[in-house]
Amino acid sequence: MRIKFEVLQAEFKRVLTKLNFTETKANQIATIFAENSLDGVYTHGLNRFPVFIQYVKDGLVNPDAEPLAQEGLGLLERYDGNLGPGMLNARFCMDRAIALANEHGMGCVAIRNTNHWMRGGTYGWQAADAGCIGICFTNTIANLPPWGGVDPRLGNNPLIIAVPRQDGHVVLDMAVSQYSFGKLQLYRDAGDELPLPGGYNKAGELTTNAGEIMESSRLLPIGFWKGSGLSLMLDLLVTVLGQGRSTAEITKSEAESGVSQVFICIKPNGSKQTTDLIEQIITYTKTSGLENPDKAIRYPGESTLKTREQNLKEGIPVDEKIWEKVKEL
Amino acid sequence: MRIKFEVLQAEFKRVLTKLNFTETKANQIATIFAENSLDGVYTHGLNRFPVFIQYVKDGLVNPDAEPLAQEGLGLLERYDGNLGPGMLNARFCMDRAIALANEHGMGCVAIRNTNHWMRGGTYGWQAADAGCIGICFTNTIANLPPWGGVDPRLGNNPLIIAVPRQDGHVVLDMAVSQYSFGKLQLYRDAGDELPLPGGYNKAGELTTNAGEIMESSRLLPIGFWKGSGLSLMLDLLVTVLGQGRSTAEITKSEAESGVSQVFICIKPNGSKQTTDLIEQIITYTKTSGLENPDKAIRYPGESTLKTREQNLKEGIPVDEKIWEKVKEL
Repeated sequence: MRIKFEVLQAEFKRVLTKLNFTETKANQIATIFAENSLDGVYTHGLNRFPVFIQYVKDGLVNPDAEPLAQEGLGLLERYDGNLGPGMLNARFCMDRAIALANEHGMGCVAIRNTNHWMRGGTYGWQAADAGCIGICFTNTIANLPPWGGVDPRLGNNPLIIAVPRQDGHVVLDMAVSQYSFGKLQLYRDAGDELPLPGGYNKAGELTTNAGEIMESSRLLPIGFWKGSGLSLMLDLLVTVLGQGRSTAEITKSEAESGVSQVFICIKPNGSKQTTDLIEQIITYTKTSGLENPDKAIRYPGESTLKTREQNLKEGIPVDEKIWEKVKEL
Repeated sequence: MRIKFEVLQAEFKRVLTKLNFTETKANQIATIFAENSLDGVYTHGLNRFPVFIQYVKDGLVNPDAEPLAQEGLGLLERYDGNLGPGMLNARFCMDRAIALANEHGMGCVAIRNTNHWMRGGTYGWQAADAGCIGICFTNTIANLPPWGGVDPRLGNNPLIIAVPRQDGHVVLDMAVSQYSFGKLQLYRDAGDELPLPGGYNKAGELTTNAGEIMESSRLLPIGFWKGSGLSLMLDLLVTVLGQGRSTAEITKSEAESGVSQVFICIKPNGSKQTTDLIEQIITYTKTSGLENPDKAIRYPGESTLKTREQNLKEGIPVDEKIWEKVKEL
């Protein structure tokens, strides 16, 4: 079943307005959720919308809250998110980082007490649309064990790096776990095996069975000890720079609320030479022989524009059960 | 066989002085190579020294060159490394980034036409010693295939993230390949199996045989497609910000010279609260149950201080063949 972008957006807005979001905020949030589905990130679009609404009803997300400036240092700005909607706080922070980069060449904005930003790539595309290199990351509730451990103590702390490009931005949007939690759910619910091992089962063996991994809570970090180390570093950066809650504190509260995030923008030289350098890198990468002749080498974010175009024309594929649920909200 | 730090350092200095490095530069370079071995990074200490000397003799590293300022943008500084010694250029850039961060909260320095910086962690420790968060990365010659490809088109582009800490900095120093090239060589030469798959053999199967991986040139990026994407992004960042040579260009020249690098510094709040937040994160991570009761969970860089202390006291373990070779240089 496919639904037009505008229909999805309007439906989200209707639900948000009932929950006392202002017209402007309801519009902004509805658009971000609808755009996430439009770009093919269904796990953080329609599929996640009911969870967000539940968080608002539970008082974990405050519709009225605005980010409040804290003491910073020069190009390093700090905000308190006051548990407002994570997507709006994140948009605000990346906007500030873009403004700093436009004026000074670079900027860094840290925020504490914010909420889940849904799809991290949203803010990478935001920076790139403004002609900036964008780097941002967040901590999360603990959902993977540190290397050598068996209990979740690290977040999968998504990392986003975006480079602006005329014919489609290059945007890496990755969680530090080999598979995101949403991806594991999809595979488990569909009864499919993961293409590559995504974690350990309760017997401590690497497995491609998503259900077994969710049972053991032993998701695999990318690159084993390397992803484990990267996750810890990202938590340190957001917590120290935001003076906010760490994965440890978020996990203690048992709800993924009040997270810490960092947004960095750097202004590249917008010359023809820059354009040529970017194309040179992408072109060279694609000259490799293929492992499977039917599967082309793609740069991060390459499929996003194609999916967006297709979904705009044909409508966005939706999970009917979730769609029905949203209409009843 | 173990050699005292001062003996190693003096020997390196002797060789460098013969090659027309000034007294000061010979001292600085000798110290960096000796410190890399001291900290246990033997692959980029003594073991790499003869390669560096060969590069100087081949004219790929210019002993006299100094970094030259290029047009930047606001606080974003750019330099041309003029093919000078990579370690000194990197030290210089991180010093500039530290100075910018001390004044403005944040700094970013990009350099082109520089050379291999040896151990990337050196510059992470440098930033952390100055009380700054340091993030730096470099491109390299192509040494791993992009995801879906079979020919090397991406570098293993090391990424370093350092957070200053009273009782020992937290420093992640990782290549984007699952195992660094130096590590593969060590395992191959020792005839040992890798603990986990590190790439593909010529038949396209994942393998723990380091020799087979070096034969196929199919090193595995961390997290499969994720590390492949991360490598591409890091190459884009250093190339675009430095307006320098990409992995594509470096590879064409068939020698790993004239690389591009980026150094970012951010000044954290140096309060007691920051110290507490860092300890909270490390302590929480270590509360996980252990997979192997004899193998403790460690934070990135934790073993460095212990190795440093031990090697200072007992001398640095050296490969006798390489040590003899250096003495004959």
